[in-house]
Amino acid sequence: MSYRFADRTKMFKTSAIREIGGIIQRKGSDVISFAGGNPHEPYFPTAQIQQAFEKVFASGNASLQYGMTTGYMPLRGAISERVKSKGIQAKPEDILLTTGSQQSIDLLSRVMLSPGDVVLTENPTFLAATQAFESYEAKLVAVEGDKDGMYPEDLEQKLKQHQPKFVYVVPTFSNPDGKVWSEERRAALLELAYKYDTLILEDDPYGDIQFHEEEKYTPIAAMDERKTQVVYTSSFSKTVVPSLRIGWVTGPEAVIKYMSQIKEAADLMSSPLDQQALYYLLRDMDLDAHIRMLSKNYYQHMSIMRDYLNTLDENLVSWVEPKGGMFIWAKVHESINATELLKQVLEHGVAFIPGGPFFVENPQENTLRLNFTHPNPEKIKIGMERLTAAFKQSVKLG
Amino acid sequence: MSYRFADRTKMFKTSAIREIGGIIQRKGSDVISFAGGNPHEPYFPTAQIQQAFEKVFASGNASLQYGMTTGYMPLRGAISERVKSKGIQAKPEDILLTTGSQQSIDLLSRVMLSPGDVVLTENPTFLAATQAFESYEAKLVAVEGDKDGMYPEDLEQKLKQHQPKFVYVVPTFSNPDGKVWSEERRAALLELAYKYDTLILEDDPYGDIQFHEEEKYTPIAAMDERKTQVVYTSSFSKTVVPSLRIGWVTGPEAVIKYMSQIKEAADLMSSPLDQQALYYLLRDMDLDAHIRMLSKNYYQHMSIMRDYLNTLDENLVSWVEPKGGMFIWAKVHESINATELLKQVLEHGVAFIPGGPFFVENPQENTLRLNFTHPNPEKIKIGMERLTAAFKQSVKLG
Repeated sequence: MSYRFADRTKMFKTSAIREIGGIIQRKGSDVISFAGGNPHEPYFPTAQIQQAFEKVFASGNASLQYGMTTGYMPLRGAISERVKSKGIQAKPEDILLTTGSQQSIDLLSRVMLSPGDVVLTENPTFLAATQAFESYEAKLVAVEGDKDGMYPEDLEQKLKQHQPKFVYVVPTFSNPDGKVWSEERRAALLELAYKYDTLILEDDPYGDIQFHEEEKYTPIAAMDERKTQVVYTSSFSKTVVPSLRIGWVTGPEAVIKYMSQIKEAADLMSSPLDQQALYYLLRDMDLDAHIRMLSKNYYQHMSIMRDYLNTLDENLVSWVEPKGGMFIWAKVHESINATELLKQVLEHGVAFIPGGPFFVENPQENTLRLNFTHPNPEKIKIGMERLTAAFKQSVKLG
Repeated sequence: MSYRFADRTKMFKTSAIREIGGIIQRKGSDVISFAGGNPHEPYFPTAQIQQAFEKVFASGNASLQYGMTTGYMPLRGAISERVKSKGIQAKPEDILLTTGSQQSIDLLSRVMLSPGDVVLTENPTFLAATQAFESYEAKLVAVEGDKDGMYPEDLEQKLKQHQPKFVYVVPTFSNPDGKVWSEERRAALLELAYKYDTLILEDDPYGDIQFHEEEKYTPIAAMDERKTQVVYTSSFSKTVVPSLRIGWVTGPEAVIKYMSQIKEAADLMSSPLDQQALYYLLRDMDLDAHIRMLSKNYYQHMSIMRDYLNTLDENLVSWVEPKGGMFIWAKVHESINATELLKQVLEHGVAFIPGGPFFVENPQENTLRLNFTHPNPEKIKIGMERLTAAFKQSVKLG
């Protein structure tokens, strides 16, 4: 039989990164992988999570019944309290719980994007977000920028030209390139969003993993005093554990209302059991202390990786030290293709992700992303020994 | 600011049932509600679920990491084994785990439906499914039928006329009207689907709650020996607990592949933690014995309701005794509007759901749905005392 699929399936792509993941996996478990984006398992607060689940079960059978589409209200209340420290004022009823921030991105796309609508993005940007946008047949347009964020001039020109439905940004320790937008660029984006009546989707899954406690990175959502322009999403996948699959989103009431309505059609609700457990966890555990521990340890992971990269010739590899998050973004010499380089380093038993697929336009094939959160410090050392050796050899060969 | 939402949001409706739910809730907790669709909490296997979670936590921190988009493979294997008893041959890799069967319905819609595409449905049918179809701007066309299922003649005529993307059916203890399709009508639907190259979406969340063990209701998916035509979805919400939010879907490889791909954009994955716990539960608990207990008890619930309805004049209320599932579907005299009737019975402290909103076309406003699974037998007695009294009074007033 020939299946008559929806037009939007023409936009579905085989993910280059999933394919590369498959290649790395087939090389076997001896490969030390800097390719993924997973947190470090030994840091998981498993005992506390188990206790939180015990509290849910002890609260009675009603806790295992259907819940609300918008999510478990006490958890929405706890999130509302937590984000005040970031300067975000969100009432519990303006917070929608989702199955991870990926679902927040998808639901906003679903209520905003008709075929042909434009979304402005950074370049490179988070790949899975662009897949969600494209699945609704949206057109992606990259805004030029530098390490401080999008250039306001180019942004304004593209806002005028394309009248995009929203601008998608990961301003704090972005994936893939780990950068932090300056305050000025954040403010400029918000001003232009007001001026051109465009929403901003601020994706902030990494903002809590911060290496320099004294520095402050104000979410754009906190600057939006009118509370009209920014849809802000975050998640507990990086700070608690990924397997709970709990994200959340807040923004203008009219937008969140539509997103809640479409979530009902999408999956009725996310796991009320996991939401209740997370509520007890936030109530009874010092999550801020846990996040400080994570940030301190991940800084150590990153430092090991950085020190090895520092042994390499500047002409061979350049990068900016990240101030938080999970990734180092590096550029090798223009003559080197990172996908080819990956094949060579795999022979040395180490892996990264080529940066090309993260670009919306004009892919830079000499870029690569290194994850430092998943392997332990000892593995990072071994992996970086292999990687730096492979890099040096590739130059000799090249 | 004026938000420029996607065209599809014009199709979003305020759910009449959600509104009615709000009215019932505002009447307070003294109301005995037959309006919902929830299972009975005291029957939940909470201790076993808690043990299953303990096994996940004991298996180590890696169990709290990200999982696969398609779901936890051992659980897919366990489902593959379980459905063999229904005659369904599904390889583990052809089973996609979802956040409840609502997500299965939504993902199939997303890969199949372009604006203007037609879906054929029963009339009445499951409301939340039609909301998913309409959110993709599909057109719903009702096929005529009776207590045994769709009329093949009307079905064929509408397959010819509309070339629908799929036919949506709940053939075993449907929601709202509790009916069971005959084997002949199932076979006729499948033959016509082959002939007109159309998919069938078989939604089977209630099939396990069966009151007459000796009777067999063959899923249409089990009849589809070519394995080309039927997308079959079910869930553990009614047989284990709703709060795990685990459903699953199987069907032609090409369709499941696209659904998996779009699930990655939709929410990356459902809770791997809940999936692992369900795997241990299925491994270590006698779920079939549990389902027999549920079926026996729900039959008792239904019988109480039925016996009260039997005390009423046939001209006042007519219904067919359900052979399983969770609902009795009743018709009152044509002169009575069930929404008006609801207002009257609420004054007596009891509630149901009017049937009108479940119709895709030609709503029968004198129908209503009674849920017998959620309240306990004692409450059902009190509620039915109130309901039958209110019914009798409404006739006198009418």
